[in-house]
Formats: sequence, C-alpha cells, structure tokens
Amino acid sequence: MIPPSSSYLINISLGLPYHKVQITTHLLLNFLLVPNHNTVMATIKVYGSTFSTAAMRVFAALYEKDIEFELVPVDMRAGEHKKAPFISLNPFGQVPAFEDGNLKLFESRAITQYIAHEYFDKGTQLVIRDSKKMAILSVWTEVEGQKFDPAASKLTWELGIKPLLGKPTDSAVVEEYEAKLAAVLDVYEARLAQSKYLGGDSFTLADLHHLPTINYLMGTQSKKLFESRPHVSAWVADITARPAWNKVIAMRS
Amino acid sequence: MIPPSSSYLINISLGLPYHKVQITTHLLLNFLLVPNHNTVMATIKVYGSTFSTAAMRVFAALYEKDIEFELVPVDMRAGEHKKAPFISLNPFGQVPAFEDGNLKLFESRAITQYIAHEYFDKGTQLVIRDSKKMAILSVWTEVEGQKFDPAASKLTWELGIKPLLGKPTDSAVVEEYEAKLAAVLDVYEARLAQSKYLGGDSFTLADLHHLPTINYLMGTQSKKLFESRPHVSAWVADITARPAWNKVIAMRS
Repeated sequence: MIPPSSSYLINISLGLPYHKVQITTHLLLNFLLVPNHNTVMATIKVYGSTFSTAAMRVFAALYEKDIEFELVPVDMRAGEHKKAPFISLNPFGQVPAFEDGNLKLFESRAITQYIAHEYFDKGTQLVIRDSKKMAILSVWTEVEGQKFDPAASKLTWELGIKPLLGKPTDSAVVEEYEAKLAAVLDVYEARLAQSKYLGGDSFTLADLHHLPTINYLMGTQSKKLFESRPHVSAWVADITARPAWNKVIAMRS
Repeated sequence: MIPPSSSYLINISLGLPYHKVQITTHLLLNFLLVPNHNTVMATIKVYGSTFSTAAMRVFAALYEKDIEFELVPVDMRAGEHKKAPFISLNPFGQVPAFEDGNLKLFESRAITQYIAHEYFDKGTQLVIRDSKKMAILSVWTEVEGQKFDPAASKLTWELGIKPLLGKPTDSAVVEEYEAKLAAVLDVYEARLAQSKYLGGDSFTLADLHHLPTINYLMGTQSKKLFESRPHVSAWVADITARPAWNKVIAMRS
C-alpha cells in the first residue's frame, strides 16, 4: 500500500495547486496500482488438490518462480471436479484449473509453460530462450508427457493411490508398466550420464514435470527402478531436494 | 552464388587497394554465405516413413512452413528403427528423427514446435507470439497429446494399421477406446462451436497435430464419431483440405 503521505509527495513533485491534488492522486494511484506481475500475484488461483500429481506440477512451477498464488481446494472425493462450476474451468473435469487475472487455463503442462514464459525473469528460469537449446528441452518435456508419464501415472495409481482408497492393486498391470517404465529409465540413464539434467545443464520444466509421480513412486516398490540406475538415482535425489518442491510437499500438512 | 564481379563491387564500396581485395572478398563471402534459413534448407532431414503418424505430423509442419526437406526412409518392417545407426538419433527407436544442420531432435511434437518457432516468419504461422493467446493454444496442443492421441492412436492401430499387417482387430479394445474418443470429441464439439480452430481463430499446431490420426480414422468405422458432431465434422473437412496436408498424403504415391 502507498502511505497517505504519498499524496503530499505527488503534489510536490507535480507542483500542482491543492484543489487538483485529490484528483491527481486518485489517477496516479490508479496508474500505480494497475496490475503488473508484482501486484496481481494474489489473483493467480489454482483449483485443485495437494494430492493431485497434475496440480502438484503447477504448484512446483509457481514456487520455483516465487509467485504467490491462492489454492482453491476442489473436493474430488465429493466429485466436485466433475460438475458445475468446476467443469466450466476444465471441460475434462480434472484438476488443476488455473486463473491469472482473466486468463483461464487447464492441462498442467500448458500451465507450467505459461508460468515459465510469462514470468521468465522471476525465480528459477525453467525454459531457455536460445531456440536450439529450447528445442532440446522440448524433446525431453515431450518424452515426459508421452513416454514417462503413461507408465509412471499407471504405477502411481496402482501402487500409490489405490491403497489409499482401499482398492486392491492389480499385480499384472504393475508388472507390465514397471517393464515399460524400466525401458524409459534406461534411456534416462544414458541421457543423464551425458547431461546433468534432462533438458540441459540446468534444472528446467523437463525435470520439474517428473516430480509428482516420482514422489509417489519413491514410496512404492517401483523405487527400485530409479535406485538401480546411478545417474537416475542422483538426478532424483537432486530434484526432489529442491526447496520449491519441498514447499509443495509441505502444502499437505 | 555471388557472381565473380562482386569482388569488384566490394572493392569499390570499401575503397580498398587491390592487394586487400582478395582477403576482404574471402571474409565477406564467408559472412554472406553463413547459413541462414534460406540457404540451409537442404540440410533439414526427416528420418521416417510416409505411413508413420508421428512422421506425417512433422511433414505437415514443414509443408505448412514451405520448408524444403529431405526424407530419409527408415525401413520399419526390417526393424531399422530399433538398431544402429537410427537408435543414435532417437534412443526410443521410433520415427521420426529430425536434423536441421547440427541440431538433432526426436518426438514429433517437439520437432513441430521447433519448426513453428524457428521459422516463424515463413509460410503459415503455426504458433502465436501473444503470450496469453499462446497459452490457450498450448492448452489444446496438450489436450491433443494427453487426451485425443492416446485414444486416437489406439484406434488407428486396431482399425487402420493391424488390417494392413494382416492382424486381427480386438473389438473389445475398439469399443473401449471409441468411448474414450467420443468423450474427448464432445469437448471438441463445444470448443469448436465457440472457436473456428482449437487453438484460436486461425489454424495452428493445435489443429495440425491431429491430422495424421484423423486421416487414418476417417477410413475406418470410427469416422462416425467425427461425422456425428457438426462442428467437429466441419473442422475435419477444413483441416484435411489444406494444401500442405494433401502434399503429405501425396508423398505416398
């Protein structure tokens, strides 16, 4: 907030007579308070749950960028995500949904891309402005979305979520998807032997997108797939130790 | 090529004595001939097959941008994509792989993003430079990759590819994935009632990425899912009629 004395300062700096000060102050305050990336932060809203992997992906990006946001809890056990008003924010009836002022988005990876580009100069740089380096980074964000996540999410569901819901784990599904995840992690092991992070020399969205499912899987039998590969194991230790990620985990308590 | 007389013109314009002309000409020619987007086009290579949906996605982007490229055929029936030297281009052993000079990429959607951004000013503009409009576009490219494609690719395999290979179609799988695709297309129908294209007012990557699987599915029983939804049907007719897409289809003949 601008303190009351600021009208006096504005008066002096503009050299205006007293009767114009009130109007000028009003206009200037309006100007000074026009939303920018510093002042609109409170208007960023994430609709979701601290247990949703997709919502956690967005929280992680926001904490890395040091951007304030409001979590609007969606009671998924009550099915709130499948009906109005939530369905107007995400027609697929899934969390998260995201608002930045008038902009409304869904799909967690589209949201993190927006955050990384729109708030490029704040916090951790999660994308790269060099077009060729960015192209390499995009290869690995696509690998996460197309190769890693289908296997990791299936295992998260079977081994991480179903037990919480009192549902039985399907061991045939676990075996099938652990084999798929192992094949993906073989490629990661080779990549991480050459490059400290998946997308390049620094931590980026290509790494960040993995955190929620890795977090679940490291609490299940599937952690052996990560721990048995030295470069993958070191990478997991590195990215899960990040302060921003630990703030995501702390949201649950 | 710069004609021989250019050394004379360079000489005049720089006002240099004759003995310096040869060196100057050499340096300037080197400068003038440094690869740019007009001169390096012949170095763009796509390793793949004209029947691969992922490779077709890349061909479509290149034709939309009016960029010359060389197709390096990969004999997938002989398993060339699963062994050296191809595996060094894509460690997952899948087509396509892509080269633009020294840059080597894989993952079709990362390649199209690179093409769209790196060659922004050529041909059709497939991405948008306004950050908020680009964010909306990204929502729909993610929807394609995460929601549409898993169902559409499964149906393409069962109904479009397996018959070509003399393998039997699994009708239970078809039923399951047609229901999933129908649910996605319900969301598309609502979106396309509000917006001419998925990503916004113009044709972009968000639409283009759908073309290969739609092309296969329109030749199968699953075409009913598209034809029964008026806005989806009009959109399919529009995007499949694009000259660039028809060049992709013509690559097979």
